[in-house]
Amino acid sequence: MTTIFDAPEEFAATALAGFCRIYPNHVRLVANGVVRATTVPKGKVSVVVGGGSGHYPAFAGYVGPGLADAAVAGDVFASPSTAAVARVCRHAHHGGGIILGFGNYAGDVLNFGVAAERLRAEGIDVRIVAVTDDVASAPAASHAMRRGIAGDLVVFKIAGAAAEAGLSLDEVERVARLANDRTVSFGVAFAGCTLPGAREPLFTVPKGRMALGLGIHGEPGISEQDIASASDLAALLADKLLAEKPADCTRVAAVLNGLGSTKYEELFVLWTAVEKKLKAAGLDLVQPEAGEYVTSLDMQGCSLTLTWLTDELERYWTAPCDAPAFRKGRTVAADLRTDTIADEEAAPNIPAATEISRRTAICIRDLFAEIAALLKDQEAELGRIDAVAGDGDHGQGMRRGAEAAAKAMAAAVDAGAGAQTTLALGGDAWADRAGGTSGAIWGLLLRSWSNAFSDSEAPDDKAVTEGAQLALDGVTRLGRARVGDKTLVDALVPFVETLKAEAAAGKPLLDAWTSAANAADAAAKATSSLTPRLGRARPLAEKSIGHPDAGAVSLAMVAQLVAGFIGKGR
Amino acid sequence: MTTIFDAPEEFAATALAGFCRIYPNHVRLVANGVVRATTVPKGKVSVVVGGGSGHYPAFAGYVGPGLADAAVAGDVFASPSTAAVARVCRHAHHGGGIILGFGNYAGDVLNFGVAAERLRAEGIDVRIVAVTDDVASAPAASHAMRRGIAGDLVVFKIAGAAAEAGLSLDEVERVARLANDRTVSFGVAFAGCTLPGAREPLFTVPKGRMALGLGIHGEPGISEQDIASASDLAALLADKLLAEKPADCTRVAAVLNGLGSTKYEELFVLWTAVEKKLKAAGLDLVQPEAGEYVTSLDMQGCSLTLTWLTDELERYWTAPCDAPAFRKGRTVAADLRTDTIADEEAAPNIPAATEISRRTAICIRDLFAEIAALLKDQEAELGRIDAVAGDGDHGQGMRRGAEAAAKAMAAAVDAGAGAQTTLALGGDAWADRAGGTSGAIWGLLLRSWSNAFSDSEAPDDKAVTEGAQLALDGVTRLGRARVGDKTLVDALVPFVETLKAEAAAGKPLLDAWTSAANAADAAAKATSSLTPRLGRARPLAEKSIGHPDAGAVSLAMVAQLVAGFIGKGR
Repeated sequence: MTTIFDAPEEFAATALAGFCRIYPNHVRLVANGVVRATTVPKGKVSVVVGGGSGHYPAFAGYVGPGLADAAVAGDVFASPSTAAVARVCRHAHHGGGIILGFGNYAGDVLNFGVAAERLRAEGIDVRIVAVTDDVASAPAASHAMRRGIAGDLVVFKIAGAAAEAGLSLDEVERVARLANDRTVSFGVAFAGCTLPGAREPLFTVPKGRMALGLGIHGEPGISEQDIASASDLAALLADKLLAEKPADCTRVAAVLNGLGSTKYEELFVLWTAVEKKLKAAGLDLVQPEAGEYVTSLDMQGCSLTLTWLTDELERYWTAPCDAPAFRKGRTVAADLRTDTIADEEAAPNIPAATEISRRTAICIRDLFAEIAALLKDQEAELGRIDAVAGDGDHGQGMRRGAEAAAKAMAAAVDAGAGAQTTLALGGDAWADRAGGTSGAIWGLLLRSWSNAFSDSEAPDDKAVTEGAQLALDGVTRLGRARVGDKTLVDALVPFVETLKAEAAAGKPLLDAWTSAANAADAAAKATSSLTPRLGRARPLAEKSIGHPDAGAVSLAMVAQLVAGFIGKGR
Repeated sequence: MTTIFDAPEEFAATALAGFCRIYPNHVRLVANGVVRATTVPKGKVSVVVGGGSGHYPAFAGYVGPGLADAAVAGDVFASPSTAAVARVCRHAHHGGGIILGFGNYAGDVLNFGVAAERLRAEGIDVRIVAVTDDVASAPAASHAMRRGIAGDLVVFKIAGAAAEAGLSLDEVERVARLANDRTVSFGVAFAGCTLPGAREPLFTVPKGRMALGLGIHGEPGISEQDIASASDLAALLADKLLAEKPADCTRVAAVLNGLGSTKYEELFVLWTAVEKKLKAAGLDLVQPEAGEYVTSLDMQGCSLTLTWLTDELERYWTAPCDAPAFRKGRTVAADLRTDTIADEEAAPNIPAATEISRRTAICIRDLFAEIAALLKDQEAELGRIDAVAGDGDHGQGMRRGAEAAAKAMAAAVDAGAGAQTTLALGGDAWADRAGGTSGAIWGLLLRSWSNAFSDSEAPDDKAVTEGAQLALDGVTRLGRARVGDKTLVDALVPFVETLKAEAAAGKPLLDAWTSAANAADAAAKATSSLTPRLGRARPLAEKSIGHPDAGAVSLAMVAQLVAGFIGKGR
């Protein structure tokens, strides 16, 4: 959805004006476009790029030293007019002639082409470079018929660097054409884009499906398939392009381009898989980029662009540039570190333990294997409860923490650890792997509890009860939550108090624990009537009324499981 | 939707690894985070930032000279563990102590806090700076209780610059706290975000509504209202923050932050309105930023951050820095232009015209006023037809072009223009304002047609027919479309041929034109059976089958209107 606008028909012009207010050291606004805000040597070839709006940073974000001299901006997804192209070119001409770069679309070919004729008639030497990188739009034999998509960035960058290096108009044109001839792109879309003021997207992709061979103006693609995993998507994109790899090519520039709504983190995930594929094909990656470079409003999807480098193309691809949305080179002088960074993690220190404590450790290990299984089962349910008032990650954190604890405990047992060490290392692993608040709390809880145990004696019922109190102390001291805050503490306090009271009354551990677990259960349910006061959930008070706290619920769950475990005579 | 991933639980770690592959000159991957890839002076205070993942570029994108020394990354929306924070800090310590910066959330407070204690025990001086900028989360009197959102960027930037300037740990801590005390943010959400692997977003906002006071972990906000226009939204955000402006403050740093799926162009549109509001409040904007700085996965929405600058804070806010996602300073040395850029547009030259030709010009002006009204009426319908196989902008372009032509013609008539000049200037205005392919085509069509008219004589029927042929020639010569390409040419050719044939057969203009318009109509409808071969629509052949071409349809519409106009005796 395109959501922020005043008059839809002013969207493109207002966006351009706002962009110029943010980047006054890079660009100046002129009618229908922008020119560099910085001085340009007389006689330098000018690189003027452009097309419809809605593709930011294409094209205004490319203007700056080492890249374009100016950009012409049409309305959203509409070619700028002939008059607009000619007008911006006149501002951007520094006596060295002009390279006019744009994506190969009928409207742009027409308007830039007629503008070039008009400028030539005025005595300005203008050369046309239409970018034709989209492999989905025509076969390799008809490269010049292809549409232009994210290959724009690489071709314009190389042309801009060649112009900045002082090459003649003929030479810049040759280099730009060479870059275009050796550039290929392929993309997929997961969801369409919506024009400012429109209520419906230009196209939709069925849920769970993706469109292959997208265009950047809401063209929905040439075929469709189920959404692939990142690895399979990487293979799909890379294989399609590798099919056109020139035999002699070993070095490529790569741009993994997000179309608007696809997250940078998704692009980085995809990049790890793309890089593997390209390296497996024998290619060296030269300064690859992952980010938003040629977008299509709020479209969700991405494309991969490869440029088969020659030495000359590599030189211009890697040259410094300084445009608002694309920079190469350093703003602060700095040397690369040359040392290796040591992985300082040492194996945990396992103190010697008695046979009896090691047997208890085995029992603890088995208990936590069951806890891990329980929390894996309950992951979705705990996530659901947490999502009401939080970010829904509680189930994931608990599952991950318990898994890590179980694994660390198994390793500790294998290394001969006693009860205290096994429980403590399990707590550390839980905290380290689960992350988040609940991970830290559970880590504190288990590590504190372990202080009531030892590596020499079997823990008696008293040690268990004492451990519970230590755990509560640890959690409340560092976690800063109090009863009534709608956290795990709301269940932990009645649990520990009941356990202590029943133990003091002489009840056997199983009975005491069962009563305590029931108290925790009741308290967890009662958190439904509370409103949270702490941390990130604070502003969600109203939403969370009527829903229990996920941390209290999971604590009660674990307590019930432990009761059953004790009941089985373990 | 978060769409690209392999194993959801590996999303954050894989994204971080991919990020490091893209930015090897800026960062190095360590366990649970990144450190600078560049050398750091011994004894410099280290600024280590972090929090959960899913907020890119927060926090790894901030690492580099002049900004952070390292970033700790938890899982998606989950605080990194205590062990993780401590581990990354040990890598990032250069002997000058550490500023630990993070947003104020329970999990982060806990984990960073416990890690700081652990590091202090190891002899590293660590200071905690929790960012508390979100005005929605607590009143101004409880600034320290607020959550941290996009204010992170400004606080960390200022702390990083102070550390880079060689300030002592005490001093960097003081400056960072001052920056935080003077930083406020407020945000809105239009749509929620989806965790990797989840099928449903963490929250939804009803269509047409927006949530105010969002959090950055899927917290849905504290209230809700109808989506506002860009101007009203700017007022909403700015007023909320201006209420906390210190009386002495005249200079502010500003960050307009996109949350993930909100387009840069939308942010630039919003910025133009925000800037107006802030200037009206007497504030000077110091290097404002608009972009994605603290995101929340694919959440749609934005926030505004203001930092009430002091001279000291301004110095550190504007100092150079070079992180992957945030740079200040130039990568290429360049001087700002100091000249003014002249607006070269001259008023059009209006040749002298006879009374009779001026009367024809008035008739042409009136005709195009009707055409403009027709195309305004039909804008939605033409957009709908175009959206099937194109980008849906045809109606908009035709409406805008016709409006501009009518306006230019009225001005030409007022200036005494004859028929030829009036039609030609109308064509130029249509092309210039409509943009796109259809704008250029209609500009060519009208300008070519005008060559059959003059500014001295009334055009006879023969001139009209000749004009039609010139128009067709102009369009096909420069537009490169042929009959059968599913473009306007498919309707224009039968129109012109019928007009000529009927005129040659001696039919009066009204009859000939009516027949021609009917032929255009029939041909436009018949484009339903064609598949497009040209330009951007090429890969959409299958989708467009069964739908007429919008350009042919609009041409036929206009031809029919002209027939009616002639019929009225004009």
